[in-house]
Formats: sequence, structure tokens, C-alpha cells
Amino acid sequence: MVVRAAETSIIEGGVTSPQGFRAAGVHCGVKASKRDLALVTSERLASAAALFTTNAIKAAPVLVSQEKIQSGVAQAILVNSGNANACTGTQGLSDAREMTALAGLQLGIAEEFVLVASTGVIGVPLPMGAVRKGVPEVIRALGPQGGADAADAIVTTDAFPKTAAVQVELGGALVTIGGMAKGAGMIHPNMATTLCILTTDALIPPHQLRWALRWAIDRSFNCISVDGDTSTNDTVFCLANGLAGNAPLVDHNQAFDKFTGALGEVTTALAKMVVRDGEGASRVGSLLVRGARSSDDAKRAATAVMTSPLVKTALCGGEPNWGRILAAVGRSGAEVNPGAIDVWIGGVLVVRNGTAASPDLSAAASAMRAPEVEIIVDLHLSDGMFTGWFSDLNENYVRVNAGYLT
Amino acid sequence: MVVRAAETSIIEGGVTSPQGFRAAGVHCGVKASKRDLALVTSERLASAAALFTTNAIKAAPVLVSQEKIQSGVAQAILVNSGNANACTGTQGLSDAREMTALAGLQLGIAEEFVLVASTGVIGVPLPMGAVRKGVPEVIRALGPQGGADAADAIVTTDAFPKTAAVQVELGGALVTIGGMAKGAGMIHPNMATTLCILTTDALIPPHQLRWALRWAIDRSFNCISVDGDTSTNDTVFCLANGLAGNAPLVDHNQAFDKFTGALGEVTTALAKMVVRDGEGASRVGSLLVRGARSSDDAKRAATAVMTSPLVKTALCGGEPNWGRILAAVGRSGAEVNPGAIDVWIGGVLVVRNGTAASPDLSAAASAMRAPEVEIIVDLHLSDGMFTGWFSDLNENYVRVNAGYLT
Repeated sequence: MVVRAAETSIIEGGVTSPQGFRAAGVHCGVKASKRDLALVTSERLASAAALFTTNAIKAAPVLVSQEKIQSGVAQAILVNSGNANACTGTQGLSDAREMTALAGLQLGIAEEFVLVASTGVIGVPLPMGAVRKGVPEVIRALGPQGGADAADAIVTTDAFPKTAAVQVELGGALVTIGGMAKGAGMIHPNMATTLCILTTDALIPPHQLRWALRWAIDRSFNCISVDGDTSTNDTVFCLANGLAGNAPLVDHNQAFDKFTGALGEVTTALAKMVVRDGEGASRVGSLLVRGARSSDDAKRAATAVMTSPLVKTALCGGEPNWGRILAAVGRSGAEVNPGAIDVWIGGVLVVRNGTAASPDLSAAASAMRAPEVEIIVDLHLSDGMFTGWFSDLNENYVRVNAGYLT
Repeated sequence: MVVRAAETSIIEGGVTSPQGFRAAGVHCGVKASKRDLALVTSERLASAAALFTTNAIKAAPVLVSQEKIQSGVAQAILVNSGNANACTGTQGLSDAREMTALAGLQLGIAEEFVLVASTGVIGVPLPMGAVRKGVPEVIRALGPQGGADAADAIVTTDAFPKTAAVQVELGGALVTIGGMAKGAGMIHPNMATTLCILTTDALIPPHQLRWALRWAIDRSFNCISVDGDTSTNDTVFCLANGLAGNAPLVDHNQAFDKFTGALGEVTTALAKMVVRDGEGASRVGSLLVRGARSSDDAKRAATAVMTSPLVKTALCGGEPNWGRILAAVGRSGAEVNPGAIDVWIGGVLVVRNGTAASPDLSAAASAMRAPEVEIIVDLHLSDGMFTGWFSDLNENYVRVNAGYLT
């Protein structure tokens, strides 16, 4: 099924949709029984860009990939789920390096060109026996239709795997961009939260790819919140192998903008899937803060609302408790004039000039019970704005996270 | 029952334990059936100090009491629960002023000397018919044993009312300090969170009382976290009527320090009750961060841990998931050396130099299942430290807060 948009086409697919990429996902034994090892490869060396967690405590694979990405090129990405290889000291670093060496050797490419990521429990040494056994298996399973299996192999507490892809014409060439991401906890609007792998057959140098990736992530993964925690392992990789044959995207011209916008479509689609799958989420809130003194202030206010446990439980209960929204805005540090704030819930004006717009909340209550609830906060100070998406906080989140280890 | 300590004695009691204070709590109709109107009075004009919410959006009673406290003296405090009188515009301000006028007139004291506070749902006009009916009733009920009823009348979602009292000898005079507080949501280490009323028969001028109150609150209510939300209504009042007959506490001398320490004992006891009663809390964490670059850094790290939904759900599940503690410290903004962090859970060393101290977590798991769990994080950088208390996040919290309005 292909939905044609004006400029880009959303297609069913993932990391193997662009030309020249293969992928696979297998079970090797890090997890008890589910897929836990994913590999994505390009048939030729690709431009590579990445964004990593802002957490001061970074997992071993983050440290290793941060080094390797300096070259601006890569050809393979090996990911395990079920174990984060974080807070594992020098052994962890050595394990992460061995993962790149194993994959490089058996794929016949230099280990410098193999990136690595891990996700799962923190502080437990990676079961390298399982990984060593798994690498040849995942290489054997590599295929041009392997994107779905790979997406399934990077999940942890996710309810469903997340893939997206788009196509866009760039100067006569058809460029495809695909991606996969995992959720579902430790998701917060702060840098490249979560684990996300993007592939494209566009021809674009590393420097421009980095710029486009930062732009796309700032408008997608950096705008979502599940629980306000930022992981030690957050990583976004993007490989561009140039097989589409487009004119190189070397300038910030119209073709480059089109590519960047299309990349943003993929990351936004994936980011929204992560929120929808926020651990145990039953309802998604979309929040627009506008009229702020600055866009930073708008983001500050939005972040306070999107991470407020009281707002998130109200979203769970489907209650239009706008007082909690105002209380969060008020403590956010953003400049506010309490008597000049308006709030809409699902298109219903519930707060005018900082007080109840109407004693009747029944229309807002109906809106609050929809699967996706649109909230708008207008601070009426200037033109700063920020849009974000967040999940509710419900009993499932607690159940999923209270018994994670056991 | 009186427990004698070296300097202070903890006694059973509350706001009516000091000489010359009366209190009452009645039902007037703001809530459906529970007590919802409390009054505390001093038989003579008292030194008065207060701390208020740092939220930019302040409830009407906060704005009114902020004006009145400027005089440094007060004689009565009227509090309703069930409605926060917040985000209620000019009508709210007029209602808060009318509360002080009604109480002043009927008590025969100037309304300037009546402080007011409200707690409950935000954004709904205060049902003044009920309050007008209730003021004469709560005045009729005033008595020297009324502290418990008053404490019961200020609660909202609390599981139990919170009172505490201590006695201390100051230069031959026996000084008593009593207090009451409410929880249980919107509790965060940020200024005078929650609603708390303190009374004492010490003779102390307003300026010194303010200093002592700030000191005591900084070490108690400013160190606790239930959910990271800061209310629009947070207020701490302290009245000191001088009836104990001690030499006036005018200097920062030993007697003043003794008084301040005793006041801190009352606020710490109340703050811990608030955490223990954190909405739906089943378990309390006490957290010491030490070895930080500064005390601000220690507080930053502690706040990230104490408000992390993942740490709080691990506390609920009784799981020694120290990776989540490190992840929260790492994203806190505090300076850290990832390879130099130690963590203890219930006296068990679980992290040494940033990695697992032992693969066997069974001792830590037992400690994590106690009603109170002591967590120590040592950053090994310098001597900054901070101690705080926090509640777990469990399914009850969600149930209590998802259906608050309905």
C-alpha cells in the first residue's frame, strides 16, 4: 500500500526498503526466547551520522560507536537487546569492541566500519557466549526483506516493533529512507532518546547527513516524553549508501531540504509510535505550547506538562483536569502571566485568561477520552512555540517497570 | 507517651500543644461529607512567618496571605480543603479575602491578622455558601484539644492526618512546638511544598522566626518528593505567641539554635509522614548523595533519582535495580565521574567504581523490600551532600490520581 503525498510517499517498509541494505534479527540467548540480535548492512560503505545520549553515564557501545562514527562512514550496525552493556566497566568496553570485531571479520569488512548498540538491563555483563554464537547466525539470516525481523530484535518492553519508510524524488532519482526504533521507557525530550536506525540510498556526504539527522531528530525524538528518564544507551544511527544515484546533496538547496524533510517524516512517524507504545500507554497527548516568550520557554513549559505525573494520570483517567496543566506550566520556569493563559483540550476552550472558561467540562471530558488528545496552551506573551507528544501514566506502566528484573 | 531526647522531647500532639492555641475542624460542605474547614487561633497576637509555593501560578489564598504576612504578626489561620481556590481569577481573590473577613469579624480580631489557605481541586470557584455557614461552626468548635480535628480537616487524598509536637527547655522556660501537615500529591523538593501549620509558645520576633522557619523547611519539606509536581497552593505558616515566657530569641545564640533545631524536628517528622503517605505509597526511600562537587550538585543528583519514575517503580517492586539509579544520576546535570561512583542499598554495596560490586543481588533485594529503604550514592568528587526522602510509584498512585475529579 502506497500513500502518495505531494512531495514524499509513505511506504510500508523499514531499514531494508532503500536499495543495497540487508538486515536480520535472530534469537541468540541474551533474552530467554525472543529475538535479541539485529544486524543491518549496506552493500557498500555508506556515509554515517549518529546522535548519542546526553546522559553523563554512557553505555560501552555508545562510547565505542562515538569513536567509530568520527570517520563519517560505516557499513554495518550490530545491535543486541536484553542487556544494555552499561555500567559494565572495562569488560563492557572490551565486549562492545569484540561485537564490532566479530561482525567485521565474518562480514569481511573492517571492524572500524561496524557500529554497535545495546539496550536492556543495566549493570549486568553481556553474555558474550550467546553473542559469539549469534553473530554468524544473524549474518546467515541477512536479507533484503529482513527489516521487520531486525526491528523485532531490538525491542525490550515494547508492545510492537516500529518501522517506517518514505520515498522522495530528488532531481529525477527516487530516494528511499527507512527506519526502525525501539521504545518504550526512559523516553524524554532530550537529544536522540531511544534506539533508532535509519537507512537511505541517497547520495549525501557525512557532514550534510549529520546536519539533516540533527534537524530531523530535534523535531521528532526530541519532542516526545514517556517517563522523563534519559537512558544511558540512547543512540540514533543513519547510513546513506548513495545507490539511488541522485545528484550529491552537497548544498543546503531545495533538494537537500526535501531530503531533510523526508528524513523528518520517518523519524516523526517512529517517534509517535514510541509514544503510542509508551510502556503501558493507553492514550497519547499531543501538546502545543504557543505564545511563549521564546521557543526555549515554550519547550520548558511543554516538558513540565508532558512529564507531570498528575497530568499523565489525568490523561490516563480521561479527565480534563486543566488545573494540573496550569500548575505544571507555572512551575516550569517559563515566563508566564497567570491571568493571560488560555488552554484548549480537544478543541474545547477550557481556560480563558487563567480561569475556567466554562463550568461545564463535558465536551472537554469527551475529547479527553479519545485515543489521541490535542492540548493547546497559549501563554499570550510572544511567539515562542513547541509541539510534543506524550503518553499517559497508568497501572500498566507500574506493572511493567516494578517487575523488570524479576 | 513522652520520649525524652537529650535536648528535645517528642510529645503526642499538634497545633494545640503549645500554650494559648485553640483549633477545630468541621465539615461545612466543600467536600461531600468529610471535614473540610480548619481554624487555628492564638489567644494573643503572635509573631508570624510563612513560606509559599514557588509556582508562578499562585492560588488566591496564597496571594492574600502573602500580603498579610508582611506585618509579621497574625492571630488566626483559616484553611479549607476540597477546593484549592486556584486559577479562579478576581472572584477567587475576593473569596479568599472574604474568608479572612468572616473569621476576623466573628473572632473579634482584625482581618489583617487572619491568614488563609486552601487545598483541593484547581479551577473550580470556592462554594462560599458552605464556607459562610462553616465559619461560625468552626469557631464554636474551637478548643485546646482541637488539633487533631483541625489536622483531619486539611487533608485531601491523605490516608491519615499528620501531627507532631516537641518540647524543649530554653533558659528555664519549657517551650512547645506543634504542627500539622497535609500531603499527599504535588510534593517535590522545592520550597515549602504542601500545606503545613506550625505553632509555638516561644517568644521570638518575626524576623528571627522567618529565619528559623526557612532553616527548618530547607532541611525537611524541601528534601522530599512524592511526584515531582509543585502545587499552586503550597504554604507553611508558623505562629509564635510568646506565652512560654522564655527570654526573647533575638540573637543567633545557643537558645536560638536549640529552638531552630526543635522546629526542624517537627517539620522533619511531618515531612516524613507526608512521604510515607505519598499518594498510594507502599514503601519509602531515604537517599543520601555524598561526595558531590557541591551541595547543589548533590541535590541535583538526588532530585533526579527521587523523581525518576523508573527508580520509583523499582522501589515499588522491591527490586535493587541500581542501573536506574545511576542512569538518573547521569542525566541530572551533576558532575560525575562514571568510573568512580559507589552505591549502597540497605547497607549492601551494589555498585563499586560505577559497575556491579557483585553479581549476587539477593542481600540488596531483601533490603529493597523493607518498608524503608536506605540508598547511598557516593560520587567521590568532593564533599557536597544532600539527604532526601521519597515515595515509591505504584498502581495506587495511578488509581488515586486518574480519577480525582470524577
